[in-house]
Amino acid sequence: MIARIGILTVSDRASRGQYEDLSGPAIESTLNDYLTSSWEPVYRLVEDEQELIEGALKQLVDHDGCQLVVTTGGTGPAKRDVTPEATEAVCERMMPGFGELMRMESLKYVPTAILSRQTAGLRGNALIVNLPGKPKAIRQCLDAVFPAIPYCLDLMDGPYLECNEAVIKAFRPKAK
Amino acid sequence: MIARIGILTVSDRASRGQYEDLSGPAIESTLNDYLTSSWEPVYRLVEDEQELIEGALKQLVDHDGCQLVVTTGGTGPAKRDVTPEATEAVCERMMPGFGELMRMESLKYVPTAILSRQTAGLRGNALIVNLPGKPKAIRQCLDAVFPAIPYCLDLMDGPYLECNEAVIKAFRPKAK
Amino acid sequence: MIARIGILTVSDRASRGQYEDLSGPAIESTLNDYLTSSWEPVYRLVEDEQELIEGALKQLVDHDGCQLVVTTGGTGPAKRDVTPEATEAVCERMMPGFGELMRMESLKYVPTAILSRQTAGLRGNALIVNLPGKPKAIRQCLDAVFPAIPYCLDLMDGPYLECNEAVIKAFRPKAK
Repeated sequence: MIARIGILTVSDRASRGQYEDLSGPAIESTLNDYLTSSWEPVYRLVEDEQELIEGALKQLVDHDGCQLVVTTGGTGPAKRDVTPEATEAVCERMMPGFGELMRMESLKYVPTAILSRQTAGLRGNALIVNLPGKPKAIRQCLDAVFPAIPYCLDLMDGPYLECNEAVIKAFRPKAK
Repeated sequence: MIARIGILTVSDRASRGQYEDLSGPAIESTLNDYLTSSWEPVYRLVEDEQELIEGALKQLVDHDGCQLVVTTGGTGPAKRDVTPEATEAVCERMMPGFGELMRMESLKYVPTAILSRQTAGLRGNALIVNLPGKPKAIRQCLDAVFPAIPYCLDLMDGPYLECNEAVIKAFRPKAK
Repeated sequence: MIARIGILTVSDRASRGQYEDLSGPAIESTLNDYLTSSWEPVYRLVEDEQELIEGALKQLVDHDGCQLVVTTGGTGPAKRDVTPEATEAVCERMMPGFGELMRMESLKYVPTAILSRQTAGLRGNALIVNLPGKPKAIRQCLDAVFPAIPYCLDLMDGPYLECNEAVIKAFRPKAK
């Protein structure tokens, strides 16, 4: 089974072509660094509109068969930032540990890390994780939370992700 | 007043007798280590069904007079894991600090700690705290959060818990 | 533009004149230490009643033009403590990083820090932050989260706060 991973960029300006989306490609490049098992990205780009973000997330999970979706952008306090609200609206169960750890990690670099409202949750058998908007912060956050993601997908009967141990160590507890 | 402490094991397999519940007894044994004041456990075992978990929590608090209830199991991302949702459904007010600290503590041991969706909350005068399913993780989490529990019960006019200071130190701020 | 900052003390006893409110003045004095740009406090004092707290928060944001409101009191587990619930009820979007960091900070001093249910959120263009009730804990928490607040207000087109760098360093990421 080839893992399909959704990458959703949420940005008014990139959607309107006012600048190039650097964040989506930064996620794809990071995942290429991490993964040795085969995978393919399913890429989407939407404006900072809750309804559009919800629609894209549902599409990626329900129709495109992504069991892992990462978003970038729209997690700050600015008026148009509603990615966490859209994420919560499409998830049945939330995973508070992801946001907590990403903020804790970002706090090592900038005190404004607490302004990030990033969350994560589960829709059916899929994990949705909000990442920050800036490429450098994306890598810091993924480095922190990714070690737990392969096992999370295992628990939901998802694709078996294998990582390049020299880059990132996936952790799987030993079977009882 | 003898403190009654509810211990709720949430497990499909233990409920069906497919294996012995080790987690409930691990909690009882840990609390025996901690407490020097008299207490009695009120033990329940239910399947991973949100309705059954909610029913057991209400029973323990409203009818069995437990002002402290600890649960074990059902806090991960697997489809049947709904203990946090049941907890939130029966609580009027949430206590986010418990889950945050337990995850932070577990992160010292395993990066998959962020997959735990453990929470805690208040139903009337009772504190309900989700613990992990595995006995070793139960002890790590209880060691982290228990020091705050006796004072929490004091604030809700609950039973006065006294601890064996050589094992765990309950913290009570000095009266003003 | 003079920054107007709402200071809301939530306390049954102070409201009834049973003792003097020390927490509101402690916040004002801390903000005077921090800020070199001009500001004025808008002070309110209400009982621990969710409806009254919600009303005061709406008044401060919608009518008094406060783009920053800090509350003190009512964040513990005692039956009358409902400040976080009132805050969540009047905010459209929540800022979980504030409560997480304040609890983490307070944990350095007392293990009962996890009993604090402090939260923060956004109502329109305003940031509302719950602080603890005790003056010493107020200062500890503000020292931890305040460095992120001026930039948060910038992102919401609020007043430009300038700080005394010898006391507290506001952090503003460099423009792209």
